[in-house]
Amino acid sequence: MARDAYVNGRYVPHAQAAVHVEDRGFQFADGVYEVVCIRNGRLIDEDGHLDRLDRCLGELRIAWPCERRVMRLIMRRLIGRNGVRNGLIYLQVTRGTAARDFRFPAAARPTLVMTTRRAALAANARAGVRVITIPDIRWKRCDLKTVGLLAQVLGKQEAAERGAFEAWQVDEDGFVTEGTSSNAWILTADGALVTRPASHDILNGITRQSILRIAAAEGVRFEERPFDLDEAYAAREAFVSSATSFVTPVVRIDDRAVGDGTPGALGRRLLEAYVAHAEGAGAS
Amino acid sequence: MARDAYVNGRYVPHAQAAVHVEDRGFQFADGVYEVVCIRNGRLIDEDGHLDRLDRCLGELRIAWPCERRVMRLIMRRLIGRNGVRNGLIYLQVTRGTAARDFRFPAAARPTLVMTTRRAALAANARAGVRVITIPDIRWKRCDLKTVGLLAQVLGKQEAAERGAFEAWQVDEDGFVTEGTSSNAWILTADGALVTRPASHDILNGITRQSILRIAAAEGVRFEERPFDLDEAYAAREAFVSSATSFVTPVVRIDDRAVGDGTPGALGRRLLEAYVAHAEGAGAS
Repeated sequence: MARDAYVNGRYVPHAQAAVHVEDRGFQFADGVYEVVCIRNGRLIDEDGHLDRLDRCLGELRIAWPCERRVMRLIMRRLIGRNGVRNGLIYLQVTRGTAARDFRFPAAARPTLVMTTRRAALAANARAGVRVITIPDIRWKRCDLKTVGLLAQVLGKQEAAERGAFEAWQVDEDGFVTEGTSSNAWILTADGALVTRPASHDILNGITRQSILRIAAAEGVRFEERPFDLDEAYAAREAFVSSATSFVTPVVRIDDRAVGDGTPGALGRRLLEAYVAHAEGAGAS
Repeated sequence: MARDAYVNGRYVPHAQAAVHVEDRGFQFADGVYEVVCIRNGRLIDEDGHLDRLDRCLGELRIAWPCERRVMRLIMRRLIGRNGVRNGLIYLQVTRGTAARDFRFPAAARPTLVMTTRRAALAANARAGVRVITIPDIRWKRCDLKTVGLLAQVLGKQEAAERGAFEAWQVDEDGFVTEGTSSNAWILTADGALVTRPASHDILNGITRQSILRIAAAEGVRFEERPFDLDEAYAAREAFVSSATSFVTPVVRIDDRAVGDGTPGALGRRLLEAYVAHAEGAGAS
């Protein structure tokens, strides 16, 4: 498949898409990214993703590489060139290229890279997945969507090697923070939908926020608070959410079945509502 | 100045030295690095740096990009091409380029990048520097020399903006871990040289290890243990160590003068011994 990438003002064949070895993304993880899902040619929750990008860039004092209006145009143009109807667009902004120095460079221009990928909605969103639990070893600013993802890489790899889809990270007090690339949810034994509140401990997922809005609109009782492993093991249902996995039921946590070990009713209902959202008002 | 870089088997002009946008170093900070100092055309503590590289690659299960023998040859060839007599060589190894996925790729070849820089020994190694203190917000595997350096970037930038050379990171119990790119040392009021022991909390600096050996050989009383800010503020002397800053005296910590506010005798003595080491047996 012929595919182009976008790199700093140019559309280039994917194989030739490159950044300088002194790009601060490569040498310092000094950059942030977003992944936006594409359904039927439309971007899901685009504004939410660009708002979060704006916040992360602001916190790190990285300038926007172009106007937001232009960013939106580039995204559409790349999706069009690559003929993506269903899949995702990945965009990364770094502080730019400069002679290696920990301090911010005086005059670097931010780097902007975009790539796309075709993908159908994962089948496991219907069948349910397994998660393992691991210690959360990440830094203290997990609210920032930076490319400093090595802890998450190691966690996801461990999950894969142990036959699981995702790893839930557990803080020093025994509470689940989130998955390595998704937010974590449970439906407690007494019927409350629970997910950890947004703080520096988790990434405030755009899909997470949409689900909270949907849950509120549907009259689901929910609580934003930490939950520990005992509560997770005893949950009636569990699921993970992300821009690409939507609402994916969790049927096993470590060696315990969740509920009866099959996807539950609330997860299915939220997934259906989320897909309707994705194909309707949330897409642009 | 014409300069070459080495990238995956080729020597290329610095301006054209590039890696793919899906290099895992760029997208995941999934890579490690070393900085080796060059004095009079010789590499200081090369074996120590390559041993640490080996350990970090092993912990992360990244293969060596080439044999160690070949790595040494490439380093020498690049230094020769660039005519570096005094300066440093930077080398970075990543897990390679692969379609973006948190899990380890099945068949990626590790990326190897090297660059050099000319530099004299920094003048502040004689005059002394200021440090500030900041909370340590890094992940829990600081013993690995990965390119996930954003916390350190933010700390060093804050130091620069507050007129300091370095920031000492302080853990949740109030103990100094290390600087953002150097190890931290004090000479206590009662005459013990103190630095934090190697653990997952700090990078075990190659220069740090050389200084410990020198201190032992010189009969200096030293203790590898954590020290808190009160002890640092009350210290007779303080300094930082790194491959490029050697032993650099610290004359001010936050708003407190260290000792009489000028470089102390032990720091000077260790610096002289380290320079002798660097120009003698430790270089190859």
